[in-house]
Amino acid sequence: MGDRSTIVISGWQSMSYLSDVGNICWFLEPEFTKQVRRLHQSVGNAVTEDRHIVVGTGSTQLFQAALYALSPPDAFEPISVVSAIPYYSSYPSITDYLKSGLYKWAGDAYTLKGDEPYIELVTSPNNPDGSIRQAVVNRDGGTVIHDLAYYWPQYTPITCLADHDLMLFTISKCTGHAGIRIGWALVKDKEVARKMTKFIELNTIGVSKDSQLRAAKILQVVSHSCEQLGYPEDSESFFKYASRLMADRWDRLRDAVSQSGLFSLPEFMPESCNYAGEMTTPHPAFAWLKCEGGIEDCENFLRGYNILTRTGKHFGAQGNYVRVSMLDREETFDMFIERLSNIRL
Amino acid sequence: MGDRSTIVISGWQSMSYLSDVGNICWFLEPEFTKQVRRLHQSVGNAVTEDRHIVVGTGSTQLFQAALYALSPPDAFEPISVVSAIPYYSSYPSITDYLKSGLYKWAGDAYTLKGDEPYIELVTSPNNPDGSIRQAVVNRDGGTVIHDLAYYWPQYTPITCLADHDLMLFTISKCTGHAGIRIGWALVKDKEVARKMTKFIELNTIGVSKDSQLRAAKILQVVSHSCEQLGYPEDSESFFKYASRLMADRWDRLRDAVSQSGLFSLPEFMPESCNYAGEMTTPHPAFAWLKCEGGIEDCENFLRGYNILTRTGKHFGAQGNYVRVSMLDREETFDMFIERLSNIRL
Repeated sequence: MGDRSTIVISGWQSMSYLSDVGNICWFLEPEFTKQVRRLHQSVGNAVTEDRHIVVGTGSTQLFQAALYALSPPDAFEPISVVSAIPYYSSYPSITDYLKSGLYKWAGDAYTLKGDEPYIELVTSPNNPDGSIRQAVVNRDGGTVIHDLAYYWPQYTPITCLADHDLMLFTISKCTGHAGIRIGWALVKDKEVARKMTKFIELNTIGVSKDSQLRAAKILQVVSHSCEQLGYPEDSESFFKYASRLMADRWDRLRDAVSQSGLFSLPEFMPESCNYAGEMTTPHPAFAWLKCEGGIEDCENFLRGYNILTRTGKHFGAQGNYVRVSMLDREETFDMFIERLSNIRL
Repeated sequence: MGDRSTIVISGWQSMSYLSDVGNICWFLEPEFTKQVRRLHQSVGNAVTEDRHIVVGTGSTQLFQAALYALSPPDAFEPISVVSAIPYYSSYPSITDYLKSGLYKWAGDAYTLKGDEPYIELVTSPNNPDGSIRQAVVNRDGGTVIHDLAYYWPQYTPITCLADHDLMLFTISKCTGHAGIRIGWALVKDKEVARKMTKFIELNTIGVSKDSQLRAAKILQVVSHSCEQLGYPEDSESFFKYASRLMADRWDRLRDAVSQSGLFSLPEFMPESCNYAGEMTTPHPAFAWLKCEGGIEDCENFLRGYNILTRTGKHFGAQGNYVRVSMLDREETFDMFIERLSNIRL
């Protein structure tokens, strides 16, 4: 779809810092807003009515903007930031690299003690293990950031219209365009949206307009494919195409795992997908592979077979787990399956 | 020059997080590097040989990356960050908004006490007053960040090839493309470049490729205009054109100021500009306007005449000073000059 999603930007375009001075998020391109709302409506994965949209330089920046917005500004101690294990391996370092006095990483949400305020990160489907998640602490004084980067039909059945207070999305996981560095937050509370905008103002004085315009174009092409606008009838939507590729990769991975007998994978049940209009099975962006049979350092074990993975330890879990990307280039994925299939003890 | 600087990006282009895996700054587009080095060579304003280039989401992100890189990671107290008054009004808030344990704003460089380590920010030409600056603390344990955003021929004579350890530039002040959100650092020390890259990885997982490619194209057009490549002989370079506009605006401002008799402006001496090959006079991006005759709140006084400025207090100075943008759109600038000329007590 390279041609349909081509953009052309002239030298005189989008020169200003400002995009939409009447909007809380004053650096948000109106065309990007429009395409974000439209895509969520086409897919049915998240509510956008009565939500403020805040654009970020990827959802990583928005995650930090959310921490800034949700932390009490004058607390004596930094607020605790938690997530249930296994959690996204970058959360601890992103939370702590500046040694902020506003917030600090406090590890596994299941082990959070006391009755102090906290921020819980809920990634659903989860990175690394693809599970569908809900908040686990659920007590007064807590706020929740829902990271829904992987809540798209190619990864998981769309079982409901998510309507949480603060939801993060990113184009890198929706279409694969990681290099654009664009994410968006759907935010219920006006004051939170305002503070997130303030963070991005202080952090990078807004977000690239070129990237917003390109992202808008790409999301538009995806919506068109969902609505079959300008496509032959019976043509496959972007998400159906991507679902088919993911299903094929997972089939091949499960075959390889069953051949060696040394590993296990999470099992997923089919569920009714509102987008597909039928039962579909989750095919997560990562495989959370477990070494069976007493292999304690799975990352190291696989490295011996020239397979590079990330140890479960980075995700707050044990070393007998590793995370494997299911989104690498075809030739890399082929090589991974071949090498994994040939492992025998 | 809209047509010459147009870029076209197809949907399949620049999808990955990665740009140049062999480079310390692994998200740096090689074409952007090439055009940065070339432009500095055309203009003669900064050394790029034996320098690492780190790209950022504007120089604001690079400033924070530099603080992160230059702060001792395990110090008991955050390192002091200082700048001589009047300093860029955003430095204090950008330094302190996350209440980092690594660094803290400590105000005017002239009043820094003790013998602890420090980081000094030197903006030259200076925002807000256009003066040429050097470090003022100059003792052991200090490092300096040189913010050279305005060190381009339209603002100031290029009197020397800057060769400091850590220099920041941004396309927003070079060509006016603020909405692209691209800056770059020229960094002597490999370890500092590596830590700055790490900061940007944690902060935004790299920098928009679309923006880097567009910035590269625009810088190339500017270099071509300097070298008269593809232009009629005798054609005016981008910088000569912009210098002429700036000189005209400053002439009009000085006229208006002399008519009212209520204000004064900094005086600048002509100096030999290596780029222009002749004596040129500074024409800064901001006018540092002083209210004479006992008016203590110059911002408020001017607001009474529908002129919006920023009080000197934000820059660590007195309220009888204000900063005025010399870079606004023509019609806004015309209106400013008209209103200023008509002020009579």
